[in-house]
Amino acid sequence: MSGRLTIVGTGPGDPRQTTPEALEAIATASHFFGYGPYLDRLSLRPDQMRVASDNREELDRAKAALTQAAEGADVCVVSGGDPGVFAMAAAVCEAIDHGPAAWRGIDFRVTPGVTAMLAVAARIGAPLGHDFCAISLSDNLKPWEIITRRLALVAEAGLVIALYNPISKARPWQLGAAFDVLRPILPAQTPVIFGRAAGRPDERMRVMPLAEADATVADMATCVIIGSPETRVIARPSLGDLVYTPRFLPGASS
Amino acid sequence: MSGRLTIVGTGPGDPRQTTPEALEAIATASHFFGYGPYLDRLSLRPDQMRVASDNREELDRAKAALTQAAEGADVCVVSGGDPGVFAMAAAVCEAIDHGPAAWRGIDFRVTPGVTAMLAVAARIGAPLGHDFCAISLSDNLKPWEIITRRLALVAEAGLVIALYNPISKARPWQLGAAFDVLRPILPAQTPVIFGRAAGRPDERMRVMPLAEADATVADMATCVIIGSPETRVIARPSLGDLVYTPRFLPGASS
Repeated sequence: MSGRLTIVGTGPGDPRQTTPEALEAIATASHFFGYGPYLDRLSLRPDQMRVASDNREELDRAKAALTQAAEGADVCVVSGGDPGVFAMAAAVCEAIDHGPAAWRGIDFRVTPGVTAMLAVAARIGAPLGHDFCAISLSDNLKPWEIITRRLALVAEAGLVIALYNPISKARPWQLGAAFDVLRPILPAQTPVIFGRAAGRPDERMRVMPLAEADATVADMATCVIIGSPETRVIARPSLGDLVYTPRFLPGASS
Repeated sequence: MSGRLTIVGTGPGDPRQTTPEALEAIATASHFFGYGPYLDRLSLRPDQMRVASDNREELDRAKAALTQAAEGADVCVVSGGDPGVFAMAAAVCEAIDHGPAAWRGIDFRVTPGVTAMLAVAARIGAPLGHDFCAISLSDNLKPWEIITRRLALVAEAGLVIALYNPISKARPWQLGAAFDVLRPILPAQTPVIFGRAAGRPDERMRVMPLAEADATVADMATCVIIGSPETRVIARPSLGDLVYTPRFLPGASS
């Protein structure tokens, strides 16, 4: 018999940003697979089984979850943010693609969630208000030369750039190197947003011009958003500054 | 006195994908501004005032909402999806930027939501599992030559491409022209996803190779996702096919 596997996105961390659909899937599942800190956010019942793993073990976790589901269990794989953005949905699909035929018969669902860049953008204004991209800075999964080529092309294209996985203990220099790739292409005053833990008690938002952007401000919980040449900062005397990218580019047909 | 203005994202349409944070903001506000069909989705009380406008009048709507908030009201501006992605957050910021100084003192908040591309991706697998971009195909707001240049650059960069506003009565040919820009750059078999009304009763998901992609399949409620050269289709005999973009690109450092 084939069970069910649901990949749940719990959102950026504020429980008020987790969808009812995700909570429903969590309430009915019997087995939970995920990175420990994400599982810690759930209030599981004693009859719900918890299998925590390290955050570098996505493919093994996906296979273990699929094995459990193929035995007939109702399985949840838990992601922070949205599971489709640099997270577990692709890992589970990859495991299905290369795994036993029976895994293609599992009732497989993904519940979408609020991904980090949307939560950061909401806290600071509307920096993603026009064309934008999301790029993972992790060279664990792709060559660094591909990353720098992509950064240069999207900056040339005029897109706002959201950087996921900007920095970690094992990857300390990549974010600074990314700023170095972008500085010759973008204006010195282009706003760079360091959005840490948006919506959580330890939230911290910083904005600085690209010319002065300091990579050491970022940590693993930070999503970095680099504006386009059109992105603007609105100074607000008593409240924090807003950053937004206008919807309009001069020269449109109407 | 200064009131409050909250821009609320109600998600893609399935009420189970609206966040508790958005529902809270809706429950407490007194005045609601938005495109009629989005306001129709809310269950407002008789004491809550509704100001519907057409979907091409974003800036006027933003100014009216700010005027109301500046008079001390608790105002909601309602967006579908996420308000920061090709929606009302940028229009309100633009109005603040160019409006009277008092508007900078308004308590301004944005509640993020599940944007269309995330909902579509969740229904079909994990097409946004690696680097991706979101581009609006509307040449009402930017010149068509900028759009084609951006499409060519992001395709060269190897990003998955989510297209918002792919087609409308006034813009019938742009999506077909966008496919024509991409065909010489991307493999003929690159999967193209037409994700219509994801999570709603009238949902319709279609996948076809870029070589055969038919723009007439899309309508105003469709988000089109064009894979990268790495994006794969998993055939499932009894269930629908899955589409995903692997997390891994050959040649990574580990």
